[in-house]
Formats: sequence, structure tokens, C-alpha cells
Amino acid sequence: MSKSYVNYGSCAAGKPGSTMEITGARFNLSPMSDDFKAIILGAIKQVDLSKVWSETDHISTVYRGKEEAVFDALKAAYVYAYKEGVHMSLEATISKGCPGDSDSDYTLELDNPKVNQEDTQSIDFPVIGKFALYPMGSDDYMATIAEVVNEGIDRGVVTGSGHYGTNLGGSVQDVFAYLEYVSKTVGSKVSHYVSQITLLCNVPKGDI
Amino acid sequence: MSKSYVNYGSCAAGKPGSTMEITGARFNLSPMSDDFKAIILGAIKQVDLSKVWSETDHISTVYRGKEEAVFDALKAAYVYAYKEGVHMSLEATISKGCPGDSDSDYTLELDNPKVNQEDTQSIDFPVIGKFALYPMGSDDYMATIAEVVNEGIDRGVVTGSGHYGTNLGGSVQDVFAYLEYVSKTVGSKVSHYVSQITLLCNVPKGDI
Repeated sequence: MSKSYVNYGSCAAGKPGSTMEITGARFNLSPMSDDFKAIILGAIKQVDLSKVWSETDHISTVYRGKEEAVFDALKAAYVYAYKEGVHMSLEATISKGCPGDSDSDYTLELDNPKVNQEDTQSIDFPVIGKFALYPMGSDDYMATIAEVVNEGIDRGVVTGSGHYGTNLGGSVQDVFAYLEYVSKTVGSKVSHYVSQITLLCNVPKGDI
Repeated sequence: MSKSYVNYGSCAAGKPGSTMEITGARFNLSPMSDDFKAIILGAIKQVDLSKVWSETDHISTVYRGKEEAVFDALKAAYVYAYKEGVHMSLEATISKGCPGDSDSDYTLELDNPKVNQEDTQSIDFPVIGKFALYPMGSDDYMATIAEVVNEGIDRGVVTGSGHYGTNLGGSVQDVFAYLEYVSKTVGSKVSHYVSQITLLCNVPKGDI
């Protein structure tokens, strides 16, 4: 039997596989409700995808394109899935410059990348969460992480840190603006970075 | 006003902050059910935590200790949260050798690290999901990733790959055994790695 092994060939840090500066997001929405299917699919279908390449399968959804367009679509998917009183987690991986990437499966519209912003900017609610930043193939990655974490402290959306993550809190609009700043800043310093994000809304109060 | 900025000081790749080989997992269970709170807390409380250090807050749960003990406890939390017919996502970050880590908040019991295994080994169900591997501070990280992905293809639990992740599928027992192999293998080659995992059970069938 022949197996389809992978071979990443001449991939190496510092040589992004895509030459077109494609940013990507792969994410999962998990509304903790019996009505999860309608909530997820309703939100996914409501997002204006004219500025990103998109694919949804049974595991997750991927958006690829310009950084501003990808963050715009990701925020839209999350805020459109928000339902009053429904606890929901968002898990998202943001990546740029992966050596294993290729110049395919993307949309790079240059004009008006934030096509969902007008409809999403007024949907606001508090979130808590965490993120972790992985600048790849860079030896002094901790300095880069410190810079963006300190900016988050200045903005009031970084609320602390724990093992394996930095805590986030604030309005969903402010937190998304910060996460986009993080990607932009780190992406300008290293050739490949990954940002891993968890956001939670309608978190039950009280003891655990 | 004084702000608590972070400063990762002399942290650098190749110098794990912990000298004791602590492996850690930070994870979220998201059962997509109106009964999510009882499911999550019931599972978390059922895990035998005598071999790991543990902390649960409103954002996530952390286990720290020996690699075998951490995977044992993580698998237990997930299979104990399994309910027939309830779609659930697990998001987990596994990390070892982080330069920002420290020799605190851990349990390193040497004997019988897999203290939950006897009770969890018979709880089996199919999962699908994905993982991504981030060997930090290493220039040839893609070769390390290729090695463990090909082992997953041999075991039949790596079912494909997409942007920003490698797809997983199979019995929950086989998938966890593979993920532990991945961490062990990569941890022996690089001083700091992170493995990011998403697993889903009771996935709705049909079109999206």
C-alpha cells in the first residue's frame, strides 16, 4: 500500500512559502448550547467573504488573505455567533509566513479589506481569554513577545499572564483591535509567526 | 499609575526556564450543550490529580508535571467529559522547555504517572481534529514536523493536512497515544516546543 508521506523539502525558517504575504486564520466556534449548529452555521454564512478565501469543513474554518481582511472576517464570525446568555469559546490560529505555505487558496483584494466592519463595529460585549505568540525560527523571540504584551498592558486588554499564555480581557472590539496589532507588529519582525487565541463570552460567574 | 510590565530578561531559546523537564498542558473543554457547566466541572473533578499540579480558572485549566502524567490527566479530563450525542471540542496547548517557565507549580512524581489510565482506557469513541507543532528557536523545524507527521500516517491517525494544521482522526485512545509520542519525540530534539491540539467528538454529519 502506498502512503502519502509528507516531505517539506527545502522549507526553512526565513523563507516564507508564500511570496504574497498571505495571512491566515483557522478557527473553531464552540457555542455551549443545544442550538450550537444553527448558531455556528448562521454566523459563518453571515460573514461577507468577498475579501478572503474561505473553507469550512467538519473540523474548522479557514480564512486567507490580507491581514486586515482576515481579522475583519474572523471578528465578524465571532460577533455574529454571539447570543445573549450563551457561553461560547473561539479558538483561532493566526499564521503568516509559514515555510510550508504556498501562493494558492487566497484572496488579496487591495481595496476596502474591512468589508464587515460597518456591520460589526456596533456589536460589543465583554470577553476574557488568552493568547500565545510563537515567532518561529527566531532565537530572541521572547523580546518580541514582551514588546507586544507590554502594549497590551498599556491598552488595558492584557490582564495578566499564566503558564503558556497571556490573559486577555475587555470589549470584544478592543481585544480584536489589539490582536490585529500583535500580528502586524510581530509579522514585521519575524518571517514566520503563529498567534494562538482563545476568547470566551458569557462566562458563568461564581466559584469553580 | 504603575503598570506591571513584563520583561523576559535573559530568556533565550535553548535555555529552558525550568531545569526539571516540566511538561504542561493548558486546555479548554467546550461541550456544546445547555448542560455545559455540569459536564465540564464534573469531568475536571473526576480526574485523579495526584500526579500533576493543577489550576482551573474561568479561562482554562492547566496541568503541569511529568509528560506521561500530564497526558494521562488531559486524556482523563476529555473522556470523562464525553457524553453520548454531545458535540464537544477540546482545545489544548502542550508545552515543554519554555524559556519563560520556572521551577514552580509542578508535581514530579516519579512512580506510576499514568494514575488515571486504568479507569480511562476503556472509554473509547471516535474523534476528528487537528494539531500543529511549533518547535521553537530551531531553524530546521519543518524536518522535525515531517518526521512525526509521517509516523502519524503510519499509525493511521493522521488523515490529511490543511492550512495551519495536520488533520487527526481515529479512536480517542489512539489519537492521545500518538499525541504523546509527538511530544516525546519533538521534546527530545528541540529545547522548547509547543503542540496545539483541537479534538472534536460527536460531530454532526451532513453538509455544512
